[in-house]
Amino acid sequence: MYKTILQQVSKHIQLTAFEKEEFKGILQLYTLKKKEFLIQPNQQVNHQYYVVKGCLNAYYSDELGNKHILQFAIEDWWISDFQAFFEETSLQLYIEAIEDSILLGIQKDALETLFIRIPKFERFFRIITTKAFVSLRSRILSFLQKNTTERYVEFCTTYPKIEERITNHQIANYLGIQPESLSRIRKELSNH
Amino acid sequence: MYKTILQQVSKHIQLTAFEKEEFKGILQLYTLKKKEFLIQPNQQVNHQYYVVKGCLNAYYSDELGNKHILQFAIEDWWISDFQAFFEETSLQLYIEAIEDSILLGIQKDALETLFIRIPKFERFFRIITTKAFVSLRSRILSFLQKNTTERYVEFCTTYPKIEERITNHQIANYLGIQPESLSRIRKELSNH
Repeated sequence: MYKTILQQVSKHIQLTAFEKEEFKGILQLYTLKKKEFLIQPNQQVNHQYYVVKGCLNAYYSDELGNKHILQFAIEDWWISDFQAFFEETSLQLYIEAIEDSILLGIQKDALETLFIRIPKFERFFRIITTKAFVSLRSRILSFLQKNTTERYVEFCTTYPKIEERITNHQIANYLGIQPESLSRIRKELSNH
Repeated sequence: MYKTILQQVSKHIQLTAFEKEEFKGILQLYTLKKKEFLIQPNQQVNHQYYVVKGCLNAYYSDELGNKHILQFAIEDWWISDFQAFFEETSLQLYIEAIEDSILLGIQKDALETLFIRIPKFERFFRIITTKAFVSLRSRILSFLQKNTTERYVEFCTTYPKIEERITNHQIANYLGIQPESLSRIRKELSNH
């Protein structure tokens, strides 16, 4: 259960056996069935979640009921409505399981206490937040600079493990294109 | 020179007089004239920059020479090609002064040494990176969920101090719309 999250932590900071136990102590287990919601708009969100197993997506639903996918997450990724989590604003996002999923949640207050008790976790969360920040900048740049075919190729290169686990509709939605355009792009690429 | 950066730091962590001096010791001064470049693609970037005075923008130039603005920065903001800085990939962005500007730069190795010598800076940089991360998520959500009028209104609300310092072309570019559309939107808004 805790093996992969501890591996991720140990890439950036070294923990004693005691500190590992303390960290495990604040993690809460969540299990979701496929299509079940982890969070929904207008709820309180005071957790961020690490994916032990499964696949989820975070999306916004506009006033016409159209879904706009902001993020996918699979094993070893973190997911939440980070704006609501950090700024304590109301939730805007749905987070829904695409497969049966197992998650470990960290409650905001428990995280703040962890930073006080074991300050090197500041370093761990600084580093993973920086990686997430840089990857979002790349996504915005990619919107600005690349055509849809290039963005699809980039998606497949960056997320090879996700592509095979989600539907064409979900990929098209994430890329901000119509499913028909995705089919056309794939056909063109396979003819080369 | 150091007053505002120290104020920003002291919002999140408490420094002793000695630690303040140590921090000031790693800051390097940069001055730029309007239209001068701080960084350009294919250079090495190993600094991130704090704006003491002035206004800058970070943009990508596509193969047709079209400019796509990723970020503005004014007093008390940070700017860099963060992907190149953190992942040590080659630079993609131009950063150009929109006004005469004064910056304080932190070199990557000096920052790593600072984290070792004064670990509470991990906390400071974790918090400011988190804020930047959350604000990028909002920008992507805003692309997905809002029409151009709503995005312009949001821009003016979020960046009231920037709007009066940059041209209409720059605002339109940042919003990903044509300057003519921006004029139309402004006219519509002033008629209400």
